[in-house]
Formats: sequence, structure tokens, C-alpha cells
Amino acid sequence: MQRLSPPTGILHGTEHLFALRVYYEDTDLSGIAYHANYLRWFERARSDLLRLLGVDQRAAAEDGTGTYAVSELSIRYLAPARLDDAVLVRTRTLQSGAASVRLIQQAWLQLDAGTGDADDRMLAEAQVRVGFVGPGGRPVRQPAGWRAAFQSFIAPEVSP
Amino acid sequence: MQRLSPPTGILHGTEHLFALRVYYEDTDLSGIAYHANYLRWFERARSDLLRLLGVDQRAAAEDGTGTYAVSELSIRYLAPARLDDAVLVRTRTLQSGAASVRLIQQAWLQLDAGTGDADDRMLAEAQVRVGFVGPGGRPVRQPAGWRAAFQSFIAPEVSP
Amino acid sequence: MQRLSPPTGILHGTEHLFALRVYYEDTDLSGIAYHANYLRWFERARSDLLRLLGVDQRAAAEDGTGTYAVSELSIRYLAPARLDDAVLVRTRTLQSGAASVRLIQQAWLQLDAGTGDADDRMLAEAQVRVGFVGPGGRPVRQPAGWRAAFQSFIAPEVSP
Amino acid sequence: MQRLSPPTGILHGTEHLFALRVYYEDTDLSGIAYHANYLRWFERARSDLLRLLGVDQRAAAEDGTGTYAVSELSIRYLAPARLDDAVLVRTRTLQSGAASVRLIQQAWLQLDAGTGDADDRMLAEAQVRVGFVGPGGRPVRQPAGWRAAFQSFIAPEVSP
Repeated sequence: MQRLSPPTGILHGTEHLFALRVYYEDTDLSGIAYHANYLRWFERARSDLLRLLGVDQRAAAEDGTGTYAVSELSIRYLAPARLDDAVLVRTRTLQSGAASVRLIQQAWLQLDAGTGDADDRMLAEAQVRVGFVGPGGRPVRQPAGWRAAFQSFIAPEVSP
Repeated sequence: MQRLSPPTGILHGTEHLFALRVYYEDTDLSGIAYHANYLRWFERARSDLLRLLGVDQRAAAEDGTGTYAVSELSIRYLAPARLDDAVLVRTRTLQSGAASVRLIQQAWLQLDAGTGDADDRMLAEAQVRVGFVGPGGRPVRQPAGWRAAFQSFIAPEVSP
Repeated sequence: MQRLSPPTGILHGTEHLFALRVYYEDTDLSGIAYHANYLRWFERARSDLLRLLGVDQRAAAEDGTGTYAVSELSIRYLAPARLDDAVLVRTRTLQSGAASVRLIQQAWLQLDAGTGDADDRMLAEAQVRVGFVGPGGRPVRQPAGWRAAFQSFIAPEVSP
Repeated sequence: MQRLSPPTGILHGTEHLFALRVYYEDTDLSGIAYHANYLRWFERARSDLLRLLGVDQRAAAEDGTGTYAVSELSIRYLAPARLDDAVLVRTRTLQSGAASVRLIQQAWLQLDAGTGDADDRMLAEAQVRVGFVGPGGRPVRQPAGWRAAFQSFIAPEVSP
């Protein structure tokens, strides 16, 4: 049977890039992407980043080690996304502590090739704090290797 | 055919209350409600509030007057919600301007009757700014009657 | 703190009735409810039915007894639902076997009081088979009490 | 700014292939992908197919030509999908009529490279009828070019 690799993001310096397309399920009757769906997009990007850093979230969830859970999130919506738009999620780590990680995530509209880079537009920007929690939902220390993976990825300087 | 009224919230002083239950669709593999779904719950509560204030969102969307769109949102997640939990969304208006409204919304876990009020627990708290936008997605003034409806509902003092 | 009961359906003869309202999150850019969301509505109704029959799905999931999972579903979409519509989900059990249950579920548009019963309109109708599965995802027998609960609820004759 | 193309499917003979990964948002507390989300996956694949066939769904929705809407769907769930799974959606057109299209869509679990093709497993299979509807929700003829695009893609023989 013909196979096809699932989409994956890339590490680009101290930034993680993840591309997605806007589908019907993402829109609402106003014709633009529903605001809560940006949080789903950002979570996809974080999961992809974790996978690229060698973190096996599924094994950790299934063996009871724990899971990441968002504890704080602030988001500004700057411009709407529409059906079929090509969106780029850019993720940078700000801090990786014992039990939580802080990140900045942005969604950018990628215009068609030929239109030129200058026209790309930021759609939304979020600051996210993600904590590591045990099966009971209580904060626990993230595995040392995971924390280190995030730390290796922190930008030396960040200009949001 | 037997009929049944859909759930509705209530106005209680300067607060809007909206109850919901946590379903399978709301949870993820960690066993708790997925963080983005709180934004859907809060939006249901805002829509219910608008309906109680006499605002016909559907007519406004269909005749091209415009729709509300979230422009800023900050949320802290304090405790997890689980399947079958009874959640109460409490909404207060902070400010109703020409083109946007600011609200505070909280999700509370309502424990079973008999367990007592003292045990109710706040699950999440959000500050939300909602703007009114025309069909093209550009900010426009909200209809005067709608703004007034929100203003009549503003708490004289707010202790978040 | 003021409390408010979450919405609940009712048992009406051998039928379960569950009312909901259509929110922004349910719609897509075509202005009508997104087709996949009917499956979420039907699942809410099934969970509500289980709760009314005394089945504690959460305890069964958390203690490893198992969970219900849809194994087959056929749905016809007859008319669109729009923002703010009052939808009634009607559920009847057709068969309750050792490890699975078959149901018919319909979504009806409830028109405003005064418009009259005759105008209510069926939006969608589904046949659903739900199996009981253990933690590994393999089919297992549903608890005897649960099977009996479903059986007590089967319509003596069904005219879909 | 560094850019990244969004994921896209491919046409492979008379079959369309579309790969995706299972994220947190797709799962529920039972640890597997929530059944309604397969419909979202299949819709992503159909939209991707349309895009590859040159159909501009967004322009048609925005200029009032119409949109596709699912009118019938039958799905069997054969095996569960879990977090991080690589899923392949295979789509074949069975018939392209004046106002509707019939398709078969399957979701396959793609096991890691090296594990071998023989182990790929079908997760779910659906027959879907999609109708073309005008802004009011009434069936209308699909644009001739779109119908032809679908027809050019019909398998000469189909063994589901």
C-alpha cells in the first residue's frame, strides 16, 4: 500500500515551525477561524516540538508518568484566518523550570509564493505556561531529560 | 411530539450564570477537560447572556450587521474538570465600549447537593475582550441597543 | 454562591429526550451546524441517558472497567441547524446485547412556542451501535446491571 | 521569515491519500481518538482533494455559489487510533452526479517505517454522500467543472 508521512514541523535555530491549513471544522458562521481553535493549533505545534525533541508523550501518559497541561494562557487575536489559509505556527521557549515551561507561540498567515515575504501577517500571539502533572492532576516535576530538552532549545534573547 | 426546552442560563444581579456538564467530547486522554474547551464553554455562556439581553446574534450575522469576535483572552487553569462534572460559568461585564466589551468569566465545579456550597471550587478564570466586527472582519461599532444592554449589566463594583 | 443545575434530559416512555442549543462552535462558514457535531450531540444524549439509568461512566473509566465506544454509525442529514436553534435529540434503544447496544437517535428542530408542533422538523437521523471495551480497546461484556438498564428501556415496537 | 508549506495530500492513481497525526485534541478520556473526529479527518481529506482538483471552495462559499454538505454517512470503526499515531486517509470517488458525490474513505494506521507494510491496519471505513447546496441550504447543481473534476477521478472498478 502506498504510504505518506504525516506532516511534521521543523526546528529552525531556537524556533519551532509548524504549518497547517484551515479547514471547514476550524471556521464558524462568521466565515473565520473560531477563536478556540488557535489553542488546538498551538497544542499541535507543542506536541510536534516535543516529538522532535525526543519526548514520548504517549508513553508517559500510558505508563502514568504524567502529561503536560496548560496552566496559563494569554492570547491576542490580530487578524482573522479563513478557509484554506496556510498558517505557520512559530514557537519559542522562554523558560523551562522544574515543573513547568513557558513559551511564546504565534500564528502567521503565509501568503502564496510569489506574493512575497513582506506580506505575511501575524494572526495571533500567545504566551503559554504548561505544567507537568501526574495522573491525579497534581503538578509533578517534569522528567529531567525533558526539561533539559526544552532548555537546550531556549532562545538566548527573545524579541516577541 | 413531546418537547423539551434547551438549557438556559440566568441573570442573577449583575452576574450571568450558565451551567453545563462535562461530556466525553470535552475530555482528552489525560482524563480531564481539554484546555481549549473552556473557551467554547465561555462562548456558550456569552451567547446565552446575549440572548437573555435580547440580542439576536443570528439575525445580525445573517443580515451582515456583524458578529462578536474575541480579540484578547487571558485564562488561568486552577483545577481540572472531569467527565460528568457539573460546571457553572459565571460571567460579569467589566466595560462596554463603542466597539468592544470586556468580561470576566469563571468556571466553577459544582459539587453534588448535600456536599455543601463551601466545597465548590474555581476551575478556571478568564478575562475576555470581545470586539464587534463587520462581515469583512474589520472592527465596527456595536449596535447602540446592544452596547446599552451590556452597560445595564455592568457590576457597580467588581471583586474578581 | 448561587448555583444552577446543569441541563438534563428526561425519560419519556421508552424514549430519551435531550435538548440543546446551537452555538458558534457548532457552526461552520456555510452558516449551518458542522456535520460532525451531530455525533457530539448524540453522544451527549447517550451519556445523559446512561446517567439517568444509573450508570456511572466516569467510575467505570477510572477504575478500568471499561468505556462505551461507537463501533458503527449511519446518519442521514435532512435539514440544516443554525445558530441559536433549539434542537431536541430523541434516543430509543433497539437492542442491548452482551457487549453492545444499538440505538436510533434523531435530532429535531424545535420551533418557537406558538408556532405549533406541526412545524417541528427532523434534522438528522442516525443508527448507532455502541460497544463496551476494556482499557486496551478490546470488546468486553458490559456490566450486567448496565445491560439490564438498557433492556428495561427498549421500545416494544419501533417505528423509526 | 522562514516559511513552511502546509501539509498536502497526493493523488495516487484514482485514489487520494492524506496523512495526519493524532493529537491531544483528537483523544478522549478512554485514551483513543474520539469517534466524531474521524469525520473531521475525512472532511480535511475531501477538502484537500478538492484543492488538488482545482476547486476553490472558499471563493465558492464567499461569492454565494455554494458549499458541499454531507447528506449521508455510514462509518464502521474497526480499531482505535492513539496519540501520536500516523494516520493515512484514503479517498476514492464512487459517483459524481449533478448535485452530489459519493465517496469511500478509509483511515489506516501507518506503522513506523521498518515495521513493514503488512502491519498497516484499517481503523475505520466510511461511505459518504456529499451534496452541493446554495447559501440557503437547498441542493443545487455543482459547478460543471467541479463535477467533471470528480468524474475524472472515479476509479474504473472499486473493491472496497
